[in-house]
Amino acid sequence: MPVELKGNIVVTGANRGIGLELVKQLAETTGEEAHIYACSREPEGSRTEALRQLTTRHPGKITIIKLDTTNEESISAAVQAVQDQIGDGGLNLLINNAAIRKPASSGALFATKKNDMMEVYETNVVGPFTIAKMFLPLLKKAAQRDSPAKGSDNKTACSSAIINISTAFSSIEKCPETFSAAQMYPYRISKAALNMLTRCQAEDFKTHNIVVTAIHPGWVQTEMGGEKAPLTTMDSVLGMLSVISSLSNKDSGMLLDWQGNTIPW
Amino acid sequence: MPVELKGNIVVTGANRGIGLELVKQLAETTGEEAHIYACSREPEGSRTEALRQLTTRHPGKITIIKLDTTNEESISAAVQAVQDQIGDGGLNLLINNAAIRKPASSGALFATKKNDMMEVYETNVVGPFTIAKMFLPLLKKAAQRDSPAKGSDNKTACSSAIINISTAFSSIEKCPETFSAAQMYPYRISKAALNMLTRCQAEDFKTHNIVVTAIHPGWVQTEMGGEKAPLTTMDSVLGMLSVISSLSNKDSGMLLDWQGNTIPW
Ligand SMILES: NC(=O)c1ccc[n+]([C@@H]2O[C@H](COP(=O)([O-])OP(=O)(O)OC[C@H]3O[C@@H](n4cnc5c(N)ncnc54)[C@H](OP(=O)(O)O)[C@@H]3O)[C@@H](O)[C@H]2O)c1
Ligand SMILES: NC(=O)c1ccc[n+]([C@@H]2O[C@H](COP(=O)([O-])OP(=O)(O)OC[C@H]3O[C@@H](n4cnc5c(N)ncnc54)[C@H](OP(=O)(O)O)[C@@H]3O)[C@@H](O)[C@H]2O)c1
Repeated sequence: MPVELKGNIVVTGANRGIGLELVKQLAETTGEEAHIYACSREPEGSRTEALRQLTTRHPGKITIIKLDTTNEESISAAVQAVQDQIGDGGLNLLINNAAIRKPASSGALFATKKNDMMEVYETNVVGPFTIAKMFLPLLKKAAQRDSPAKGSDNKTACSSAIINISTAFSSIEKCPETFSAAQMYPYRISKAALNMLTRCQAEDFKTHNIVVTAIHPGWVQTEMGGEKAPLTTMDSVLGMLSVISSLSNKDSGMLLDWQGNTIPW
Repeated sequence: MPVELKGNIVVTGANRGIGLELVKQLAETTGEEAHIYACSREPEGSRTEALRQLTTRHPGKITIIKLDTTNEESISAAVQAVQDQIGDGGLNLLINNAAIRKPASSGALFATKKNDMMEVYETNVVGPFTIAKMFLPLLKKAAQRDSPAKGSDNKTACSSAIINISTAFSSIEKCPETFSAAQMYPYRISKAALNMLTRCQAEDFKTHNIVVTAIHPGWVQTEMGGEKAPLTTMDSVLGMLSVISSLSNKDSGMLLDWQGNTIPW
């Protein structure tokens, strides 16, 4: 049984770019019982205006949650807020999408400061680590509830999943092909680290029947991707949601692109 | 032409464990002109006693340098101290060996705090990043000086190298095989990140003729490795030095074990 796009879904970094489009398409395509928790580190700020509008267009479907991936208290409060609203339910899908790329320049060795390395790791890796850890009880609840009955033949069922948004630049194997185009030391290193986190958690959560997969969204027109990117957020997210909805246990611990192709580590 | 164990050599975390044995064997086996800069974060402390004794046994061969991989000023002062002693010479070999594993327990998800993630990354990845960046001018000097003349046929010469001490646990590919034995989230993730750093720098420094390779020392009897480890520091270091001395440009950007076998990313 593939991952189903249903139930309770959390998306981080949901106020713009790929995260905002994920919430939009999820709101449009999921069934009535589905609910989207769209996280932003500044729910009231001007940068969350588009998400607030989207929420108004889908009454009762989206809840905006304050979450800063670098702040443990903020994550813990977000989990509590989701938990309060979910009640007895569990969390079916967690999409760790929020990330930064620093320095703004090419990220060449001599342009990169120690703080760039630390901040990018804190946001892109330690954030998803902490978020998964704190949401784990809710993810387990959804996985247990919807698991096939003991003794059932359906051994590949997975009713809860974590998706870590990675990048093709995370591939250590492919680094020589892509390095000269965009060095980005802190970002590449953080996303390779995120891949290891993904694979560790895939192993760790196997017994809980939770799938953990890393997905590369393609090169996408957002603030991070820039104007030259070939993909719109719409096409990237269409692809990723199709990939996510066809994931099964065998895809846990893998790095796939938005079209479902495996990217080597 | 392989990497030669000669000239000026820097080893971090040299006061105990594998680092201390690296200094010992390098002091015993390199020629007269070679000099070893053995780094410790506490040169005067009791934990550096064995290194001080070793230095006395090899007069004029080893200089103890204060270096804490988490402290930029300490790294910059260490580079200055090495530079002052080297004078016109360059740095032929930098071995980033210092590392930590936290938490002391198995490093399971729920035993791991945010600070463990941050501290292990700072020591094991940002340290080697900053150290390589700051020693780069000296590494380039050695590489240029000893490069074959323009137009020479010898295109694989490499007279300077960076070795990043990694671990088999850094392999994202092999994670499912090793995870249950030792989860160690912060450590595994940091070493996968170190592998990406290695591969980026291998690309970056290719034009300077500097080889950058990651090496897994095996499971070794040290404070980190514990008593159950099958390998002595002597055998691990014998193996690694033999691998290092046979490295050529084609090994740059690879992850090898102490016997020269390639480990997949
Ligand atoms: N665009 C591409 O071509 C591309 C390619 C490969 C991978 N990716 C990955 O795709 C994901 C989304 O990227 P994007 O292109 O949509 O980037 P983006 O346009 O820069 O948006 C980044 C999002 O992350 C949020 N964010 C950053 N730091 C945060 C923090 N500490 N706490 C909470 N939220 C935080 C931002 O919120 P604020 O508005 O508050 O800053 C924003 O919502 C990222 O993981 C990125 O690495 C993108
Ligand atoms: N032993 C194994 O089985 C094994 C297996 C795979 C990989 N490795 C790798 O091999 C390398 C050496 O490990 P080991 O077994 O010799 O470990 P160890 O016995 O724990 O020694 C670690 C060394 O790193 C130093 N160090 C730690 N943090 C430092 C910092 N912030 N600044 C400067 N120095 C610092 C320590 O100095 P202090 O005395 O001041 O703490 C010590 O000299 C590490 O990179 C490790 O990851 C070891």
